[in-house]
Amino acid sequence: MAIYNAPVRDAQFVLHEVLRVQDQDQIEGYADLTDDLTTAILDEAGKIASEVLLPINETGDKEGCVLENGVVRTPKGYKEAYEAQCAGGWPGIDLNPEYGGQGMPYIINAVTGEFSSSAAMAFSMYTGLTHGAIKAIEGFGSEEQKNLYLPKMIAGEWTGTMNLTEPHCGTDLGLLRSKAEPQDDGSYKVSGQKIFISSGEHDLSENIVHLVLAKIPGGPEGVKGISLFVVPKFLPNEDGSLGNRNTLACGKLEEKMGIHGNSTCVMNYDEATGWLVGDEHKGLRAMFLMMNEARLLVGMQGLSQASIAYQNAVEYAKDRMQGRALDGAKFPDEKADPLMVHPDIRRMLMDAKSFVEGGRAFYYWASSLIDEENKHSNEKAREEAAMLIALMTPVVKGFLTDKGFDTAVNMQQIFGGHGYTEDWSQSQYVRDARIAMIYEGANGIQALDLIGRKLPQKGGAGMQTFFGMVKDFCKEHDDEAMAEFVEPLKAASKELQESVMWFMQNGMKDPNQAAGGSTDFLHQFGYTAIGFMWAKSAKVAQDALADNADDPAFYEAKIATARYYMQRVMPMTSTHLSRIKAGADSMMALDAAQF
Amino acid sequence: MAIYNAPVRDAQFVLHEVLRVQDQDQIEGYADLTDDLTTAILDEAGKIASEVLLPINETGDKEGCVLENGVVRTPKGYKEAYEAQCAGGWPGIDLNPEYGGQGMPYIINAVTGEFSSSAAMAFSMYTGLTHGAIKAIEGFGSEEQKNLYLPKMIAGEWTGTMNLTEPHCGTDLGLLRSKAEPQDDGSYKVSGQKIFISSGEHDLSENIVHLVLAKIPGGPEGVKGISLFVVPKFLPNEDGSLGNRNTLACGKLEEKMGIHGNSTCVMNYDEATGWLVGDEHKGLRAMFLMMNEARLLVGMQGLSQASIAYQNAVEYAKDRMQGRALDGAKFPDEKADPLMVHPDIRRMLMDAKSFVEGGRAFYYWASSLIDEENKHSNEKAREEAAMLIALMTPVVKGFLTDKGFDTAVNMQQIFGGHGYTEDWSQSQYVRDARIAMIYEGANGIQALDLIGRKLPQKGGAGMQTFFGMVKDFCKEHDDEAMAEFVEPLKAASKELQESVMWFMQNGMKDPNQAAGGSTDFLHQFGYTAIGFMWAKSAKVAQDALADNADDPAFYEAKIATARYYMQRVMPMTSTHLSRIKAGADSMMALDAAQF
Repeated sequence: MAIYNAPVRDAQFVLHEVLRVQDQDQIEGYADLTDDLTTAILDEAGKIASEVLLPINETGDKEGCVLENGVVRTPKGYKEAYEAQCAGGWPGIDLNPEYGGQGMPYIINAVTGEFSSSAAMAFSMYTGLTHGAIKAIEGFGSEEQKNLYLPKMIAGEWTGTMNLTEPHCGTDLGLLRSKAEPQDDGSYKVSGQKIFISSGEHDLSENIVHLVLAKIPGGPEGVKGISLFVVPKFLPNEDGSLGNRNTLACGKLEEKMGIHGNSTCVMNYDEATGWLVGDEHKGLRAMFLMMNEARLLVGMQGLSQASIAYQNAVEYAKDRMQGRALDGAKFPDEKADPLMVHPDIRRMLMDAKSFVEGGRAFYYWASSLIDEENKHSNEKAREEAAMLIALMTPVVKGFLTDKGFDTAVNMQQIFGGHGYTEDWSQSQYVRDARIAMIYEGANGIQALDLIGRKLPQKGGAGMQTFFGMVKDFCKEHDDEAMAEFVEPLKAASKELQESVMWFMQNGMKDPNQAAGGSTDFLHQFGYTAIGFMWAKSAKVAQDALADNADDPAFYEAKIATARYYMQRVMPMTSTHLSRIKAGADSMMALDAAQF
Repeated sequence: MAIYNAPVRDAQFVLHEVLRVQDQDQIEGYADLTDDLTTAILDEAGKIASEVLLPINETGDKEGCVLENGVVRTPKGYKEAYEAQCAGGWPGIDLNPEYGGQGMPYIINAVTGEFSSSAAMAFSMYTGLTHGAIKAIEGFGSEEQKNLYLPKMIAGEWTGTMNLTEPHCGTDLGLLRSKAEPQDDGSYKVSGQKIFISSGEHDLSENIVHLVLAKIPGGPEGVKGISLFVVPKFLPNEDGSLGNRNTLACGKLEEKMGIHGNSTCVMNYDEATGWLVGDEHKGLRAMFLMMNEARLLVGMQGLSQASIAYQNAVEYAKDRMQGRALDGAKFPDEKADPLMVHPDIRRMLMDAKSFVEGGRAFYYWASSLIDEENKHSNEKAREEAAMLIALMTPVVKGFLTDKGFDTAVNMQQIFGGHGYTEDWSQSQYVRDARIAMIYEGANGIQALDLIGRKLPQKGGAGMQTFFGMVKDFCKEHDDEAMAEFVEPLKAASKELQESVMWFMQNGMKDPNQAAGGSTDFLHQFGYTAIGFMWAKSAKVAQDALADNADDPAFYEAKIATARYYMQRVMPMTSTHLSRIKAGADSMMALDAAQF
């Protein structure tokens, strides 16, 4: 019953008109991203999303995964959809051609990934996590490991997982108990229990490559003694064929609020054979490489659920006849007007549209920084991009998932009681979106990462780069036509600077003051960053209209939505600033017993 | 695994120290509400909530209701719990003694109802809806109807429902199609399909009394031609014994996101025998009597889920050891500190505590206005209370459910990945709380009711009463000790007046301007009203501490929480004012095709 039309036009607008990827020839591969090429790719990705993935999304939610005799059965249609995706080479679109990948820029994977995740988020996690595992092996594995694992994983014959969490520790990895005993042949015997392992066991691929954090006995205490191991379900022979079953098993499937189609496993490792990836005790470095990418991907998941929830709410608001427009009947021949005429419905739709499109621009921009970091010809540009994306990763993750969830909730609201039933998919979008605020570092952890680690990095260089970009834009477009966009952006940026100043003055001497305002700061940053995207989009749209571009209604909608964002969304930044400046004293005042 | 400790101490604080019910001897029954009496009642209600209702809440969610051969089976333990509640006389605690009720003030029902709903929301709906149906029959039924139905319903032998929604119309009742054909014996044959009928069919009571909206052929078009009928499942004989089965049936149970323990039915009426309640074509009046009460109750549901979610999150934050306090280890002998030490966890807990306790005071205050409206000895006082509660009902419903849901989501967040599993009950509180934003008039409808109907009533008299009360309080406590509470309250109230002025200037000539800001206004009002409650609570606490009252930690916590609310929650009012003043033009700018 649900629809999904991949937002190809909007993606193209961001890629070619806002970010102008085709002009950035200093980034390897970007000059090839012509409008023709991206249109061909995105059209095809959109087609797969609508025709192959969307149909399995709702049934996947209802059916869920089943564990029987240690084997997990994914919902009906998952295997066929997975095979179709692999056959098209989609999982490896941006991966290393040396191992069978297609070598496109990361940003293309970001766009096609958004489409897949909108159409079937739980399903898309199987390939999404494999992508991260591939990056970790490519970044830290030995030549032998790379040659053995990467071709299979990029082809989708083998999938990957990441194993961090244990029953008693999630955020605090220093408490980890899983052990890896070195063996004479250079391998390790890995033992321990891991929980919340997405895609931990399933029937989509012939092998599953687990990347597992564990401690080598005798190593340093805490996080400094954690190593990373590759622990495959089936031990591969040297030629890549499958050998013995490893001594690891899925002990339980979690019953969850959503993402029922993805198997969330308790994984038990019982002296399972594994091999060290990278250096002893340096496992977190590799895991963070995986995790940083995973965090962008999770931010995208929040956006993706907002996007499909919005599309379906728009259709419903057009179709459902209920009540009359306050300023006179719009469909006098019908017994009622469509929901769309009501201002409060418009409020929710415009909130959603301005978030989804602005958030998309923000996410694609962040993804382009990954390419810039890895593939720009100029070292200084690479460094600057690295600083900026490091800073923005927690904002992408935290803000897009918090607001993505809120958006899905609001879109469900448009359906009234029907949205609460499981006959429509709105409940699923809400339930699926909810996890994105939690995993890969709960959003409170993102906020701490932002304020405690990323903001002060190299004397605040990343933040200064961001402020500089906003300032340059505002200066460049200090004209009457752009004033309605530039002025609110300038004000929000000034407020954000005020917050940074406040943290510098108060957070250094008392870290609770910084942490107490961290979530507000993350949101304030998110609103401002998306405001920057909207100001840029408005400028592009003004220019296009001045040039008599095709499809003026599209550009006019961009300007109207930018205006809505500036007038009705941006005011949140002031509240966040007020909260930050209130400090953490009242927050920390109570004894535990007084709650 | 979940806990629930009824907040008896906090309820007593609101009843006896903030509202001072025992001193309001002009309201019938209030002078009897001594501390001893309410302690006895609330302790007992709390005991039932924890010992009888809480145990069936999680199993009710997992098991749900089952429809077999037209009969709905409620989850295991529901029938026993229902019988225990009825045996204790709880459903009729505030109802007319003439028909077997206990005749206590409404506010007592509000408090005990909150406890029940926190412990088992889906279960509590069976009695909650009966309560509303009783009020409608008592208010509009004939003597014969009252004598026949009320004793059975108050005793809980029969339950009640309200039937408004049809597949094609929820909000817009003018589109109603159900028909009622008059018969020679004075009865009617009622036909039509009703959907989303809570408690429509179940096995808890021997009979179910459906109150059904339908049109008598030949009556006026639209909402002016709607009548109310009583259509019992079993036709009662004159002596109250059960006669024939009526021709009505549950055709389907809805599969829903939450409240699985409550049967949400499609009800098919096939020339079912019914009797008119009240006057022909005046059905909406009676239904609104029911609905106004139901709206307060639904607001309470939002609060109730926030309350139990908060309690469990506090326990988890005390127990779960994860990470270290930023300002030095609090439990150096353990491997980690409890979650409770982290500022961002505190932020969520303090947001929740300040909402739950402030919202509780707001809800009890609103409930006391119902008693004042119905049972005050002075007519002017009754009228003033009626105006004020009419104005505040949409705020109680809309604000407490929106923020109750947000609070449940935040409390789930504290559990990390565990909160997303169905092993803990946090997912259930979120899923259950979600419906309260939708039913009994979606929150957008509450906002329209507030701005379009309630605010302008009698020249804005209700609003002026509210502003007058706030002003008097601020004037009376214009001292240094209270300044930190009075000043933010004064500022918020001034901003709220600014919004009212803006609506007067802009909403009259263009209703879209009013409707476009309606939800912001509802929230702005909600924050201010709860701010008023917090300022009052702080004053009471200051006085208690000055008087060396017992349990100073309780009063100190009240002051600290009031301070948190003023510093970190109240700033939202400015954002709402900004949005309202931005007007609706940007909201209404797009064509439907541009979404």
